Amino acid sequence: MKNWKENVRRVVPYVPGEQPKDTNIIKLNTNENPYPPSPFVLKAINSLGNESNRRYPDPTSDKLVKALADFHGVGSDRVFVGVGSDDVLGMIFMTFFNSEKDVLFADVTYSFYPVWCEMLRINYREIPLDDDFKIRKEDYMVENGGIVIANPNAPTGIIMNKNDLIDIIEANSDSIVVVDEAYIDFAREGQSCLDLLDKYDNLIVVRTFSKSRSLAGLRIGYAISSAEIIKLINDVKYSYNSYTMNSLQIEGGSASVSDNDYFRSMIKKVVETRERTTKELEALGFEVLPSSTNFIFAKHNKISGTEIFEYLKDNKIYVRHFNQERIMDYLRITIGTDEEMDSLIRSIKVLLDKKADI
Amino acid sequence: MKNWKENVRRVVPYVPGEQPKDTNIIKLNTNENPYPPSPFVLKAINSLGNESNRRYPDPTSDKLVKALADFHGVGSDRVFVGVGSDDVLGMIFMTFFNSEKDVLFADVTYSFYPVWCEMLRINYREIPLDDDFKIRKEDYMVENGGIVIANPNAPTGIIMNKNDLIDIIEANSDSIVVVDEAYIDFAREGQSCLDLLDKYDNLIVVRTFSKSRSLAGLRIGYAISSAEIIKLINDVKYSYNSYTMNSLQIEGGSASVSDNDYFRSMIKKVVETRERTTKELEALGFEVLPSSTNFIFAKHNKISGTEIFEYLKDNKIYVRHFNQERIMDYLRITIGTDEEMDSLIRSIKVLLDKKADI
Repeated sequence: MKNWKENVRRVVPYVPGEQPKDTNIIKLNTNENPYPPSPFVLKAINSLGNESNRRYPDPTSDKLVKALADFHGVGSDRVFVGVGSDDVLGMIFMTFFNSEKDVLFADVTYSFYPVWCEMLRINYREIPLDDDFKIRKEDYMVENGGIVIANPNAPTGIIMNKNDLIDIIEANSDSIVVVDEAYIDFAREGQSCLDLLDKYDNLIVVRTFSKSRSLAGLRIGYAISSAEIIKLINDVKYSYNSYTMNSLQIEGGSASVSDNDYFRSMIKKVVETRERTTKELEALGFEVLPSSTNFIFAKHNKISGTEIFEYLKDNKIYVRHFNQERIMDYLRITIGTDEEMDSLIRSIKVLLDKKADI
Repeated sequence: MKNWKENVRRVVPYVPGEQPKDTNIIKLNTNENPYPPSPFVLKAINSLGNESNRRYPDPTSDKLVKALADFHGVGSDRVFVGVGSDDVLGMIFMTFFNSEKDVLFADVTYSFYPVWCEMLRINYREIPLDDDFKIRKEDYMVENGGIVIANPNAPTGIIMNKNDLIDIIEANSDSIVVVDEAYIDFAREGQSCLDLLDKYDNLIVVRTFSKSRSLAGLRIGYAISSAEIIKLINDVKYSYNSYTMNSLQIEGGSASVSDNDYFRSMIKKVVETRERTTKELEALGFEVLPSSTNFIFAKHNKISGTEIFEYLKDNKIYVRHFNQERIMDYLRITIGTDEEMDSLIRSIKVLLDKKADI
């Protein structure tokens, strides 16, 4: 073996949900929004000329940072933007998780957290959710090198009691607590941790444009925290790649933030479809966890997760199935349009009828 | 001090060349191409609809990878694409530079190399160029944890003798040798290392769309190597961010690669302007290093680099000046349009006249 092979960073990469090239598929497997982004976005992108392609983009993404800062009522020095929340979280892990102690997160949560830890040689411990798939706050009141909580959690869809979350943040003033709010826009108001930022200097809130803003394709995520913490993340970012965001992302993202009425109305539609679909699935014998997101996590009382997953896939409906012990029988189903959910329900009914015949 | 502050990855970030927002500036400081990209690029970007914004992009960037593979006559499994060559190089450093031994590169070269090493805790040694700012191959025939050579080098613009480079690659079969060919398209043909890839399994060639393809704004870079090496880089990439490239980059980049005639003709224009500008600067008392790039590295025989830099900046002409010992008196001047270079020469003449009067 060549010596260079001894020094390779060997990793087991994250496997994202399938992105089939067949467009004739009902795609409920990667939590994309079924509705298009604000029409302002495409207009902003198409109004950019070649000059913005030829020149380096603004390395500080000022326009987008300012739009987000204004939207959330914080200073521009408190916002960090990156290539999707994955880039933002990756940078946060690199910047802050350099202790010998374990970083803590749930056993059932966004499956990228352990992947970053493995890749970046960060010690970590996965803490089992309780039997109702909820986070027990006491589990996070132990020595640690950092805490990451997806809230609402994925793939469960469950949101934490805010006071419990506050207790975790307070008990860990010596640690960075990252709250990954990728799905928070689909939750009831007042659940976000953003209003806690002024009180706790160890808190970082992470958001994405991929779900509620219908912009998975543009790749935009951001973090809000103190100016001090944002500067530390930016320093690492500028030590990796000065120009991560191109002008199309900066302009398109800013246009999305400017169109709040559209944003709210699309979220409302998704939430309504979620509530209706939940009832229909329950009527068909599914147990559906209470969702504060744009997906539902459900298992049938008779048929295995694998079987439903395969059946739906054969019928060109893609949902997400995790081959992981505790959640083998669950499916994570993205909320699509009403028509897409009708197709899903119809397909499941056919399967149930077939099984009843046997 | 809060404990979390003890575990912060503290870095001294790379400082990119200024990106002034004032559009009334002749910008010769970041090696952008003065000519627009192929018209196919904007057409491709503007033909994308909202569906490509709403959905996650293709995580493997198949279309762009295939376009580059075909362009260079290699298999698709031998091409890695990233968010500019900075992302590509950063991933390569993370993937392969994990030895205790020093990674080697020149003292005067792309200033991001030591920044990545500091950030990623990689041991490294900067090896002085010789008195003519050239790489001495013997210096790289010592124990090392990897080698990085910008060829042509920046900010000197000088290209290595290819046989010397081959000797380095051959002498280091136990190390990964990265040849950063960001500027190679402006060099004479036959100088690239791409044709060595089939012979040496320790070689990685890195390229960018930011210079010769006039697409600094889109953020596209790539690496070509063996299928084995590309897979290892991809594994690390998928452990950091599955979706780094958005559809606009994938489509715009592919469109650029498809328009080879345009590409060649723009390069020809830049090279002609470079040769003419070199002669004019020499006539004004500058020593100009032999450039194989889209910039020239020059120092005046009487006036300091800082003085010329400041004077030009006051006159709204931005060039690059490095506050670094050996190259303090040099300026790195990007080749702009003929009109821009005429303005530069005129401005320098005024300064020289002023100095002569004193």
